[in-house]
Amino acid sequence: MKTDPGRFFEDFRLGETLRHATPRTVTTGDAALYAALYGTRFAEQSSDAFARAAGYARSPLDDWLVFHVVFGKTVPDISLNAVANLGYADGRFLRPVYPGETLSAVSEVIGLKESSNRETGIVYVRSTGVDATGAPVLTYCRWVLVRKRDAAALAPDAHVPDLPQAVEPTALGASCPPIDAAAYDPALAGSRHRFGDYAVGERIDHRDGMTVEEAEHQLATRLYQNTARVHFDAHAAKDSRFGRRLIYGGHVISLARALSFNGLANAFHVAAINSGRHVAPLFAGDTVYAWSAILAKADLPGRSDVGTLRIRTVAAKNQPCAAFPDRTGKDYDPAVILDLDYWAVMVR
Amino acid sequence: MKTDPGRFFEDFRLGETLRHATPRTVTTGDAALYAALYGTRFAEQSSDAFARAAGYARSPLDDWLVFHVVFGKTVPDISLNAVANLGYADGRFLRPVYPGETLSAVSEVIGLKESSNRETGIVYVRSTGVDATGAPVLTYCRWVLVRKRDAAALAPDAHVPDLPQAVEPTALGASCPPIDAAAYDPALAGSRHRFGDYAVGERIDHRDGMTVEEAEHQLATRLYQNTARVHFDAHAAKDSRFGRRLIYGGHVISLARALSFNGLANAFHVAAINSGRHVAPLFAGDTVYAWSAILAKADLPGRSDVGTLRIRTVAAKNQPCAAFPDRTGKDYDPAVILDLDYWAVMVR
Amino acid sequence: MKTDPGRFFEDFRLGETLRHATPRTVTTGDAALYAALYGTRFAEQSSDAFARAAGYARSPLDDWLVFHVVFGKTVPDISLNAVANLGYADGRFLRPVYPGETLSAVSEVIGLKESSNRETGIVYVRSTGVDATGAPVLTYCRWVLVRKRDAAALAPDAHVPDLPQAVEPTALGASCPPIDAAAYDPALAGSRHRFGDYAVGERIDHRDGMTVEEAEHQLATRLYQNTARVHFDAHAAKDSRFGRRLIYGGHVISLARALSFNGLANAFHVAAINSGRHVAPLFAGDTVYAWSAILAKADLPGRSDVGTLRIRTVAAKNQPCAAFPDRTGKDYDPAVILDLDYWAVMVR
Repeated sequence: MKTDPGRFFEDFRLGETLRHATPRTVTTGDAALYAALYGTRFAEQSSDAFARAAGYARSPLDDWLVFHVVFGKTVPDISLNAVANLGYADGRFLRPVYPGETLSAVSEVIGLKESSNRETGIVYVRSTGVDATGAPVLTYCRWVLVRKRDAAALAPDAHVPDLPQAVEPTALGASCPPIDAAAYDPALAGSRHRFGDYAVGERIDHRDGMTVEEAEHQLATRLYQNTARVHFDAHAAKDSRFGRRLIYGGHVISLARALSFNGLANAFHVAAINSGRHVAPLFAGDTVYAWSAILAKADLPGRSDVGTLRIRTVAAKNQPCAAFPDRTGKDYDPAVILDLDYWAVMVR
Repeated sequence: MKTDPGRFFEDFRLGETLRHATPRTVTTGDAALYAALYGTRFAEQSSDAFARAAGYARSPLDDWLVFHVVFGKTVPDISLNAVANLGYADGRFLRPVYPGETLSAVSEVIGLKESSNRETGIVYVRSTGVDATGAPVLTYCRWVLVRKRDAAALAPDAHVPDLPQAVEPTALGASCPPIDAAAYDPALAGSRHRFGDYAVGERIDHRDGMTVEEAEHQLATRLYQNTARVHFDAHAAKDSRFGRRLIYGGHVISLARALSFNGLANAFHVAAINSGRHVAPLFAGDTVYAWSAILAKADLPGRSDVGTLRIRTVAAKNQPCAAFPDRTGKDYDPAVILDLDYWAVMVR
Repeated sequence: MKTDPGRFFEDFRLGETLRHATPRTVTTGDAALYAALYGTRFAEQSSDAFARAAGYARSPLDDWLVFHVVFGKTVPDISLNAVANLGYADGRFLRPVYPGETLSAVSEVIGLKESSNRETGIVYVRSTGVDATGAPVLTYCRWVLVRKRDAAALAPDAHVPDLPQAVEPTALGASCPPIDAAAYDPALAGSRHRFGDYAVGERIDHRDGMTVEEAEHQLATRLYQNTARVHFDAHAAKDSRFGRRLIYGGHVISLARALSFNGLANAFHVAAINSGRHVAPLFAGDTVYAWSAILAKADLPGRSDVGTLRIRTVAAKNQPCAAFPDRTGKDYDPAVILDLDYWAVMVR
């Protein structure tokens, strides 16, 4: 058969490497669309002049745009038959990526575990985005619940990888160039609050809300060449569990990140993903809000220009976050849709 | 508090200067999106080859794209707590802006006047868009009705600035380069009608209609990094005066300008804004039509290549403009949503 | 009158040449939007690095993006008063077009035939897209049913041009550069199936479905500067035959082409249009599916790197194509919306 039905759980082998299709040159056109889709305002990603003054070669692509482009490539090989995208861990944005660069992706299967009902199984992969020279620019782990083609098929022995609870901040130094803190203009950046002004335990309601339309998430998800059918096919979705199209979880991450500008304007670079979970689905017509908590602060080795904040950003739908909707034990407030734990670099 | 609640009326001081956040490098990606959002067809802004033959360095950005990017930056500091955007005056597009340039914005508070009910006040600002060297590319005044945080707060003495009814056309000479009228190809430009063919008093129904979708105005308004919540948050809008999201008034201006191509194809450059008023709100699902009247004609000093038309463009919703819906005294036809008076440069 | 009411059937003269308005520089911004609108994944059009390795100067624009931009220019002069776009024939994509090039268009009237009811007539044109030097990059014929201004007006003698059933593949050699088949990486391209793997008569269900939103087709059609009112004016459409906006037929072609990646990933270049017909209209909310049949295979003279497949792609709405909905005699399955016959180049 010449069409790709996607891989089922029993098609994966522990340790195999999958080279994903469709390399993609990411341009200022993609950056403009990203701005239009999320309204992001971080100054480094918005202005060549600001980025150059700070120390970049020019305005880099938004970290999450890089993530989504890499993630999109993995979908046809990893998650076309996924039931759910379960989580992320140990992600690192290794260096700035600039417009004009070409990205492709490879994944290694690092874990497999059949479900007890034998109809699905969890596939753990480490996916890596590489540039035109093959050098990595992003690496992360994710795990996803994938259907079996045949419940009776034999599954390999369970292997669950040992993933860190959080990325060590000492590993994050190269992810952004030396920043000229004296040239960093807080009025242009949108906030006077720098690294020293944030305290562990502090919580920030990002206030603004963003309603999502079908056309928006479809444009975004196609931009990332993400082919998961659940995002695009309303005809088939009528007979699905939710009765309608599901919004790509990464769309929520980018919305939450853009909303977080209001309170975290100087956290200009996402350096690492500690963990991430799509707690509940988002649908068109829903309005996304977000709040963040500062989980930790760390120096970067040899860097006096910037520090890194460990931030937990929680997104909720159809409920402003002034009351910080959260998790209680294992249960989440029903409004919560995303629970994301990451390191962001902030100027001192 | 680290999040920005926006300024209230009593936070403004006459004469103060506000440097706005988030400089923005505007690229061909933004120009492509602008084309997709409005379908603009003015040849200079569409074709590098046409623009170079006419006398530009390359195809400049649409004047209103430049305006919206500058306007967007002013929103967090000026109009986040606005009740209504009341008007524009004395605007000048000072030179062509090209893809790759970085824009930022500053505003001076030039007037303040508390409302009689003491719950709001009018803030008058002169906003200026500047390039990466700090040189101005656009300047305009606007006034906006802003809520007070506290009705009991003392307000400064009223000061209403003296704004001109119209910009003097003698000031507009530098806003476009010398145009090689002989090289200006009317077939490519889309009309044989040049400056000499328009008469003061002439009215033009632009005929075409454009229906606006929620995704479209949201994409546009985010592209401009305009953060006014009323455009994006359907959840909060349910409890608002209109019960739904409001479309950014600038979106209507750009739609009307694009529609005006059909009748004003050679009016390739907006040089000045004399006055502008958003007469009524536009909502998704509405269809925009427009008509224009030629209010005046003027030579530009020392320029035999181009002249300038003072144009009044009126936009209406859900009513074609063959009957020229208009103002009678102080009352507008209920279909009218925009009344804009500007100078446009046209080839002779 | 300064506005353009469009031409009616009796305004066309056999043999006349129409130079169309609004040249357009097509950029990486347009390419990004095209990706977002259709989710296309052909590697040459996606990656500069892949395209260069294959033999292109850089990633070329998608062939159908070039087509739509050229087509859009013809609309104000040819089809503003069209009742229906009847068909395409003898189309050739003459060379790769790269971001940064400026396209304009001319059309020659090659046939005219009044309808028996005298209220409309068929206009046949050959339209040619040219680059900034005036050299052609695309040529195709289309015919369109155009209203008469006045049913009583005299019509010219009928002249129906003699159009080929299919383009001779021997004419297609120059449409893509020599491809380095050894450097062509099937994993990156997304399929191991090359020219030799396809058999005449083979049918492929492309599986995936794509639902179209109003905002999406409007953004696309404006991007192409296509001004046909039926796509944009919901207010006027209420009183039309269909009661709502019609989606530009070219949007369906691009959706079907993007869907066809799943099964035809290595058919990286559309070289010729043999024939095309929009069988039924598409409306927002509908979901598009597609299937293809291999009609013929041909060598390109002097080319051992690539061969060409004659492909018939059929698109259907709201019905997956596992059962290959088709034509029986003159009647189509009611789900079918597009029947397109073209030559595509595939690596050997």
